Amino acid sequence: MKALVYDGPGRRAWRDVPEPTLEQDSDAIVRVDTVTICGTDLHILGGDVPEIEPGRVLGHEAVGTVEQVGPAVRTLQPGDRVLVSCITACGRCRFCRTGAFGQCLGGGGWILGHLVDGTQAEYVRVPFADTSTYPVPNGAADEAVLMLADILPTSYEVGVRNGRVSPGDVVVVVGAGPIGLAALTTAALFSPSHLVAVDLAPTRLDAAKRLGADVLVGPGEDAETMVAELTDGLGADVAIEAVGVPATFELCTRLVRPGGHVANVGVHGKPATLHLESLWSRNVTITTGLVDTYSTPTLLRMLAAGRLEVDRFVTHRFGLDEMEQAYDVFSHPQETGALKVALHRT
Amino acid sequence: MKALVYDGPGRRAWRDVPEPTLEQDSDAIVRVDTVTICGTDLHILGGDVPEIEPGRVLGHEAVGTVEQVGPAVRTLQPGDRVLVSCITACGRCRFCRTGAFGQCLGGGGWILGHLVDGTQAEYVRVPFADTSTYPVPNGAADEAVLMLADILPTSYEVGVRNGRVSPGDVVVVVGAGPIGLAALTTAALFSPSHLVAVDLAPTRLDAAKRLGADVLVGPGEDAETMVAELTDGLGADVAIEAVGVPATFELCTRLVRPGGHVANVGVHGKPATLHLESLWSRNVTITTGLVDTYSTPTLLRMLAAGRLEVDRFVTHRFGLDEMEQAYDVFSHPQETGALKVALHRT
Repeated sequence: MKALVYDGPGRRAWRDVPEPTLEQDSDAIVRVDTVTICGTDLHILGGDVPEIEPGRVLGHEAVGTVEQVGPAVRTLQPGDRVLVSCITACGRCRFCRTGAFGQCLGGGGWILGHLVDGTQAEYVRVPFADTSTYPVPNGAADEAVLMLADILPTSYEVGVRNGRVSPGDVVVVVGAGPIGLAALTTAALFSPSHLVAVDLAPTRLDAAKRLGADVLVGPGEDAETMVAELTDGLGADVAIEAVGVPATFELCTRLVRPGGHVANVGVHGKPATLHLESLWSRNVTITTGLVDTYSTPTLLRMLAAGRLEVDRFVTHRFGLDEMEQAYDVFSHPQETGALKVALHRT
Repeated sequence: MKALVYDGPGRRAWRDVPEPTLEQDSDAIVRVDTVTICGTDLHILGGDVPEIEPGRVLGHEAVGTVEQVGPAVRTLQPGDRVLVSCITACGRCRFCRTGAFGQCLGGGGWILGHLVDGTQAEYVRVPFADTSTYPVPNGAADEAVLMLADILPTSYEVGVRNGRVSPGDVVVVVGAGPIGLAALTTAALFSPSHLVAVDLAPTRLDAAKRLGADVLVGPGEDAETMVAELTDGLGADVAIEAVGVPATFELCTRLVRPGGHVANVGVHGKPATLHLESLWSRNVTITTGLVDTYSTPTLLRMLAAGRLEVDRFVTHRFGLDEMEQAYDVFSHPQETGALKVALHRT
């Protein structure tokens, strides 16, 4: 079969690899029908995730059809249509048993396209298939469901829920890429007073506005001043970091009010400076996190009920075998205006 | 009257100053019966709190007797015995109305011995007296009540409650000075599995052991290894920082398990490095805070009910006019073994 293979920093190829086979009793083999590319895949290609070995098939998000299941799989059968989540869960370890699937100690967590071969392929082996896939709701479009493989639960859990977004809050989202836009979408569920989007790209701020941001902070504008004006000088109730560089994290710690929350969602490759000399007395809560996907079933129900708007995320569509072109488009968002790309089996 | 006056960095004197008078309708004048010195006062003398003006009377903790009240004071009358808290609360602003008294916007917060003259004096003016003092419970010893002016609510709210200490947790307290020991005392209320105390001073570790710590990490011992051994390599559920320097804060971020809490209590004068490149995916919650004293009424009830053991904190006693000697003893804990000092009107 064909798959997108990581051949070391900066090198990728859509090339022939062996088809996956069942390795454990709890595995399933899933035919990939729709797949996407994540900003994390670009971090990998940039060399920021050093534990990934050359030869690894990338990708941790897909919608597909079950082809084969191991003898221990109880809830899936061939022909079932499933969402393959970015988080694999053994379902049995200390962390899985508290819903902290992202920290799974039993061989799960973020493993697809990281520690085992991933979804940017014609077929993928999904370990712990019962607890790592979700049924596609009847009538839901593949592309919409695909947005729930990673970005929606990540932004919702790690940004909005960790940040304790509440009705009436002033919420600032720094970074309006796919993760930031998903944070705006899910923060809006809580009826904030103001949703502020900060980004350098006008096209992304346009997208932020369409998704509910009512205050846009663009290049040359000062987020601190604009947030202070909105909040009697106090700062935002919640600041969500959706970029992953020290400067944007540090900005969030300056934007938040006393008693407020900074929720880091970005994937970081470097340390940041934490200004404890000013923060120690400000009762600030800072959270980090990999998504657990505890919210995925809820988000799928909301999608099926028409209560979650995810149609605006996919900007570019490709056939599965156009993976290389899709990477080219996705990795140059300034030129292409790309948010999420979707690749469909044809 | 006599008072301890800050005369600029490194300079203090117990000298004559004018007696305080009522300035606002909601003020009370309190005769100081028992007073203590805080580590924060040493930070002030060290020049770490630059907004404090020379000439300021220091001190933000006292037990005393109401001498005079302004016409707007409703719940106090001359002769009442009161705890004067480190936090003054207007009771009316946005933050006070949510119990966040430490962030009071109406002229309160930490002001005594900081922005207005404090308690290390024969008399003190207490602004917003109704909402900034607490009745001394019948039968409670002044010295015990005095421990609830700052260190007990600070360690409880900013360390234990912000850190979400829960039954069965492994809790590490880094720093076993008065604040760290108060954190151990109040963490023990939640029945943790292990209470780990980290300090360089054997005398402080002895005190930690008496207050409930069952694992002591002293000089030359490696906290990370010892905590890993206790926790199957995962790390502590809660790490409480009770020193206030970058190295101990950074140690706390290495000691905590995925999904755990770092609660900073220490007063910091410098930034720390936040290793987001490893923390981003670990679902860690970091909190900072100045005490709000929302817990003070509860802690006073516990003290009156015999459910809060605070007798071991005061190691040295003085007359009020021995303030200079008390500072000398308190500021050299390595030599004197001092934890808290108490000065009594004689």
